[in-house]
Amino acid sequence: MSDPPRWQHKDLLGIATLEAAEIELILDTAESFLEVAIRPVKKVPTLRGKSVINLFFEPSTRTRSSFELAEKRLSADSLNISASTSALVKGESLVDTARNLQAMAPDLIIIRHQHPGVPHMLAGRVDAGVINAGDGAHEHPTQALLDALTIRRHKGRIAGLRIAIVGDIEHSRVVRSDLHLLNKLGAEVTLAGPHSMMPAAAEALGARISYGLDEALEGVDVVMMLRTQIERHDRALVPSARDYFRIFGLTAARLARAADDVIVMHPGPMNRGVEIASEVADGAASVILEQVANGVAVRMAVLYLLTAAGGGS
Amino acid sequence: MSDPPRWQHKDLLGIATLEAAEIELILDTAESFLEVAIRPVKKVPTLRGKSVINLFFEPSTRTRSSFELAEKRLSADSLNISASTSALVKGESLVDTARNLQAMAPDLIIIRHQHPGVPHMLAGRVDAGVINAGDGAHEHPTQALLDALTIRRHKGRIAGLRIAIVGDIEHSRVVRSDLHLLNKLGAEVTLAGPHSMMPAAAEALGARISYGLDEALEGVDVVMMLRTQIERHDRALVPSARDYFRIFGLTAARLARAADDVIVMHPGPMNRGVEIASEVADGAASVILEQVANGVAVRMAVLYLLTAAGGGS
Amino acid sequence: MSDPPRWQHKDLLGIATLEAAEIELILDTAESFLEVAIRPVKKVPTLRGKSVINLFFEPSTRTRSSFELAEKRLSADSLNISASTSALVKGESLVDTARNLQAMAPDLIIIRHQHPGVPHMLAGRVDAGVINAGDGAHEHPTQALLDALTIRRHKGRIAGLRIAIVGDIEHSRVVRSDLHLLNKLGAEVTLAGPHSMMPAAAEALGARISYGLDEALEGVDVVMMLRTQIERHDRALVPSARDYFRIFGLTAARLARAADDVIVMHPGPMNRGVEIASEVADGAASVILEQVANGVAVRMAVLYLLTAAGGGS
Repeated sequence: MSDPPRWQHKDLLGIATLEAAEIELILDTAESFLEVAIRPVKKVPTLRGKSVINLFFEPSTRTRSSFELAEKRLSADSLNISASTSALVKGESLVDTARNLQAMAPDLIIIRHQHPGVPHMLAGRVDAGVINAGDGAHEHPTQALLDALTIRRHKGRIAGLRIAIVGDIEHSRVVRSDLHLLNKLGAEVTLAGPHSMMPAAAEALGARISYGLDEALEGVDVVMMLRTQIERHDRALVPSARDYFRIFGLTAARLARAADDVIVMHPGPMNRGVEIASEVADGAASVILEQVANGVAVRMAVLYLLTAAGGGS
Repeated sequence: MSDPPRWQHKDLLGIATLEAAEIELILDTAESFLEVAIRPVKKVPTLRGKSVINLFFEPSTRTRSSFELAEKRLSADSLNISASTSALVKGESLVDTARNLQAMAPDLIIIRHQHPGVPHMLAGRVDAGVINAGDGAHEHPTQALLDALTIRRHKGRIAGLRIAIVGDIEHSRVVRSDLHLLNKLGAEVTLAGPHSMMPAAAEALGARISYGLDEALEGVDVVMMLRTQIERHDRALVPSARDYFRIFGLTAARLARAADDVIVMHPGPMNRGVEIASEVADGAASVILEQVANGVAVRMAVLYLLTAAGGGS
Repeated sequence: MSDPPRWQHKDLLGIATLEAAEIELILDTAESFLEVAIRPVKKVPTLRGKSVINLFFEPSTRTRSSFELAEKRLSADSLNISASTSALVKGESLVDTARNLQAMAPDLIIIRHQHPGVPHMLAGRVDAGVINAGDGAHEHPTQALLDALTIRRHKGRIAGLRIAIVGDIEHSRVVRSDLHLLNKLGAEVTLAGPHSMMPAAAEALGARISYGLDEALEGVDVVMMLRTQIERHDRALVPSARDYFRIFGLTAARLARAADDVIVMHPGPMNRGVEIASEVADGAASVILEQVANGVAVRMAVLYLLTAAGGGS
């Protein structure tokens, strides 16, 4: 009988480089932390005396709050640095910033940055464990892990599930990480969205591509809706929010094409009436708020595994 | 002999819905926490493992600091969300924000918002206890409670005291909560201010109305000055700060009309030379800094009672 | 045999008023805290239940992070107030702000302010210990102390060392504190920089003055480079960054004039290619990142000594 898999990495930079057994290890660990949130005393001493720096170059209340809560429930010491509004990088290269942070001897650095690859650069420069909390449109591994935990808790497995990811495929960092994870764990993924939101080499992503929502939903076990940001891009990708909803908005009528026990997911914040109807967002199939709760547990699991893999234990 | 009153509410949204015995319970509890601030170790384990979210949609260094210190002295885990500068609500309704926060399983949410009623909406949507830290010009219950604690510690009682509240009655959230509280506990309140700062239905507020400062001060036991914000309103309410001071500024000469043992209060920050002369602000009758100290104790009491009333104990 | 020196001051406002033995006491105490940063559990209970307010009127990620980490590793409760972006001082004098903070019963207040003397004013108004984290171009004592600790750990002493401080002497708060400290401990200091960056009464500072880098570096044991802020001043002090580097930039070739075992220091953030070449910043003589690490230990030492000197023990 083989030993259970153990975490071997200093960092969590993406899903692409993880093995299936490592993903399962994180999910199993997260399951054990889910219970902490329902205790009267929501705190375990696991990371007592560990220093965690939350280094956010982009504003992100949602992800930052989830990490910070996870850190505090593990008894770590959190230090928030909002680099977007600080003088941290004034006249200083990212490499120097990395070295300076390392000199303060943190155990972990959580980083979000608008440019892909910055967390990887940081990880190569510091002894601290580095967790990618989103780098441009590249990866956002803890989001994919909380998605997977949510699916697994509802379906008992990932392998063999039919899963549609719907929306702005090209600009989403969530979709990259989700796709890596779901492929590694054996799901059958369909990416669906308008042509204008589909990357040029979509076929190379390792998923079925669909340009019609009805077709994509046919018989699926899981629908993962993406946040639509109609006005963010340098050009308008769709005529208007109303037009988008008419063509790609998830309504109860459309959802009827999916499996009877389909679950509906969304990374938040939702645009009701754009990518999703309120009847679906608030409906029986929606597990959107469970994703938020699972996010804290997944982040506790990752914080724990990375610290235990280092010098900490 | 009847049992002592016990706290029964999930939330503290305002003074209007509290009974006198409940107000007294909070004040009694606050008395017991006052002592913590003078210990060498200013910390009790009462809220260890509780998660408290400070959700401020308006900037408020003063109130936020007081709550945060209260949380830390009770050993709670604090999470600050400054919604004014964050992307929390980007494309997301307040209801969705509320649900998302709830999903992270906080025990308490402290909220300040520019619109009246938002804390009530939040309270109806989350299991966490909600504390209103100021909603528009509506209520600011912990301010009224710290005012009451300050009065009670000096006068031994509230009932029967003659109390003048002076200044911009219409735009103050403090005055609404104070008036509810002082009426419930049996004080005789006079509201005084220029016509331009008095609400249309001032008589309905349950207090004597006065448009002259000298008249209002006659024989009072307590003077509560409000902060004047001459430039905030859409129109000028008074000609200038100098004119305001001449007509409604509290000087030592004017204060001589009050009772010999009068105390002078102000919620801060003070405009010296506008609503109050420095000789009064720094004089023997001033209890303004005690209000700040009592604020931390009152907030500790509220945090404690709301947590104990929930699933926490 | 005399007793070891003991810390007697409520505050740390500058180096100018310290005695040599007091400086040594801080450095010795810092040595003992250096070890905490390399433990698996980077935390000691020394300041448990102490409240520390970090009051920053100027943004300072670097110094604020170092203090906050020091506070957390000592188990203190930290409260951050960024006065630059808050309404704290709206219509309120600094004196009133000081009194309000005092009323919340903090044990220590760390203050950075753009105007010289503000920390001294604060210290005179509050019972809490006050630590100057930089006041205009006046003092920045913990920076000087971390510089001294770094030198002492490499050279075993400060007395008799030849030390050059190079760059914008006039506008640096670091140089004032460093100069006081190095003079008190018996170093021979040379201040070097272009005429336009040298204060009018440079000779009165108690150091040798040099207007040429090569001359200043001759045989020195320590080079302390200052950050150049070419564009900050109301007039251009040097033609351009490139010109500055040509005349006053520290290159390996120039550093060869110094002692064989010279160490190179910089308070950060560095302008590579302006005041310092990367070959030097990253070279064997550079102790720049040790300064950052020593900064946390020095701040732990100061927090500890000030708390122990007060009512805390």
